[in-house]
Amino acid sequence: MKTIAPEAEVIDITHGIAPQNVLQGALVLAATLPYMPVGIHVAVVDPGVGGARKPLALRSGDGRLFVGPDNGLLLPAADRHGGVEEAVELAAGPYRLEPVARTFHGRDIFTPAAAHLAAGVALGELGPGLDADDLVRLEVPEPDVGTRRIRATVLHVDRFGNVQLNLTSAHLRQVGIEPGVRVEVEVGFERYYAVAAHSFAEVRRGDIVLYEDAYWNIALAINQGSAAEMFGARPGQELRLTVAKA
Amino acid sequence: MKTIAPEAEVIDITHGIAPQNVLQGALVLAATLPYMPVGIHVAVVDPGVGGARKPLALRSGDGRLFVGPDNGLLLPAADRHGGVEEAVELAAGPYRLEPVARTFHGRDIFTPAAAHLAAGVALGELGPGLDADDLVRLEVPEPDVGTRRIRATVLHVDRFGNVQLNLTSAHLRQVGIEPGVRVEVEVGFERYYAVAAHSFAEVRRGDIVLYEDAYWNIALAINQGSAAEMFGARPGQELRLTVAKA
Amino acid sequence: MKTIAPEAEVIDITHGIAPQNVLQGALVLAATLPYMPVGIHVAVVDPGVGGARKPLALRSGDGRLFVGPDNGLLLPAADRHGGVEEAVELAAGPYRLEPVARTFHGRDIFTPAAAHLAAGVALGELGPGLDADDLVRLEVPEPDVGTRRIRATVLHVDRFGNVQLNLTSAHLRQVGIEPGVRVEVEVGFERYYAVAAHSFAEVRRGDIVLYEDAYWNIALAINQGSAAEMFGARPGQELRLTVAKA
Repeated sequence: MKTIAPEAEVIDITHGIAPQNVLQGALVLAATLPYMPVGIHVAVVDPGVGGARKPLALRSGDGRLFVGPDNGLLLPAADRHGGVEEAVELAAGPYRLEPVARTFHGRDIFTPAAAHLAAGVALGELGPGLDADDLVRLEVPEPDVGTRRIRATVLHVDRFGNVQLNLTSAHLRQVGIEPGVRVEVEVGFERYYAVAAHSFAEVRRGDIVLYEDAYWNIALAINQGSAAEMFGARPGQELRLTVAKA
Repeated sequence: MKTIAPEAEVIDITHGIAPQNVLQGALVLAATLPYMPVGIHVAVVDPGVGGARKPLALRSGDGRLFVGPDNGLLLPAADRHGGVEEAVELAAGPYRLEPVARTFHGRDIFTPAAAHLAAGVALGELGPGLDADDLVRLEVPEPDVGTRRIRATVLHVDRFGNVQLNLTSAHLRQVGIEPGVRVEVEVGFERYYAVAAHSFAEVRRGDIVLYEDAYWNIALAINQGSAAEMFGARPGQELRLTVAKA
Repeated sequence: MKTIAPEAEVIDITHGIAPQNVLQGALVLAATLPYMPVGIHVAVVDPGVGGARKPLALRSGDGRLFVGPDNGLLLPAADRHGGVEEAVELAAGPYRLEPVARTFHGRDIFTPAAAHLAAGVALGELGPGLDADDLVRLEVPEPDVGTRRIRATVLHVDRFGNVQLNLTSAHLRQVGIEPGVRVEVEVGFERYYAVAAHSFAEVRRGDIVLYEDAYWNIALAINQGSAAEMFGARPGQELRLTVAKA
């Protein structure tokens, strides 16, 4: 990027997405961008590299530019920033690094395109337009919220072993879970007890905590331990939450 | 930070502190800063986030600014740079990112405060003053140096498996350990033999080495291996060093 | 570096080289530099630190500057950029950080030298000249290509578990391996079946793929899995490739 756009400033949000985990990448991008300056956002989690998936660039309603594979990675973030206003397929030769390796479009297609955008090239010059409705979208698993029980899905696990669920505090309130309430967590045939809390500081060392994380999602953690290890939690895994009986 | 202070230059010292290990963070910060330009130093290892611990900013005697939790993390570094000259609690609303998440003050309180300092806001504007004597201090374990034996504590373990002890070469000299001397290392009921040396280059592959590391602390390592793995070493663990009998 | 040359821009290529793996470091540097702007390239993989190996700086034919230990790390990259035009031993006191720690020349010798070069100091001022023919060179293992079979060596394993071999597609063509061909891979007494392909997108999930990677080397991978884990692959390990019988 510095060769094409020496004045561009590069900020590395993360290199910590699990290999091939497009959904985790999409959720982290969507959660993080509101805290980043408006810019050109390159994201690459790209198991389909070298296949039929299109290389993509788009502009969101609030003027941010996004570059990455057309596999759903960019859309949750773009949706939070005004939706897709214009999208193109990165097909134009002059804005690629030739020869293009079949397995590393991050280097040869995506970052060169982003750098050319930073250097002032217009989005429309990078290739033919795409219809926003034709872009690939990920299915984000929805929770099943009953009157007393929630079936939730693990979205991802961070390096502290905290387990992020596809829930917000609004979902928890529907079944009566609020800070201070004791919660039964079922994972497969195993059963654990957690306590809903505002932060780790409210519980004892080793307690399982159900809390609203810094991106306003519900997560499970163990105070000074790894919830992921205890539950054997992996992205996509289901678990059930109920208010524990007294 | 770039949104608040676009001209500020950000240097990432490390993201490699073990989760919740405030002492390791404090020691790494104190050891590293003498090699960094004078600036605004943000450090966040914050198991008490969301609880009663105060968010803190301070100026050291040599003009460096420090931002982080009031849990002892900043003080060993500040002490090496002239001590605490002025300290404030980060309480002022305009310099926070609202709403403040209960579990991520690094994002919503500490880095915004640092960025406002970089943009020219005076330390005293960030909140009410704190007495330096009231700041939380960590207990750094002291070695027990006898006439023939040292009881030392593991401070931390790096990614090479090197084991840093709470010792300097002055401690070793008190019991007659100098480069070239063979040393008995007791860990629990296990006994190992190390050789005191200036560097790995002086010993054979696989030898255990007791050496002065790059931050002038004593460490144990295995030439081209992992001492941490061999000893099962963890921060806080005790071990005993004696000159080995001929 | 910022203390010595505040205007210098620092790009971190990787901190992911396996401890002590000089060959991996040398190959990654040589593969990556063609994608980096011309600059001052510092590389430190330095198991001989504190011993007899010389600290080195050199200029390649195309005007790039290299700084690092004289253990072979820099030469494959310098060779790809016009060869060694001038080399010096980093011996001059004013361009070091005193006192020099015996185990961290990266901090006290190599990065200060690079920063002084960035600030305009001439290469020849850093110390006495060295003859290019006297510099230490690594032995890069050569494959043994027969009429039907190749004996190859694992060069390194990346964080996705992909296994890079000391082969190019020209070697594969000599024994009739081309995209679409089924290949027998022998590792010790174990035998696996891979398929040669242009990219992961051409094979099924879980298939073993033999492909040309993004640096134009041949590698083994498992689509959405870890080939390194399946093969128990480590740098230096031998394996044999043959066209599989129908």
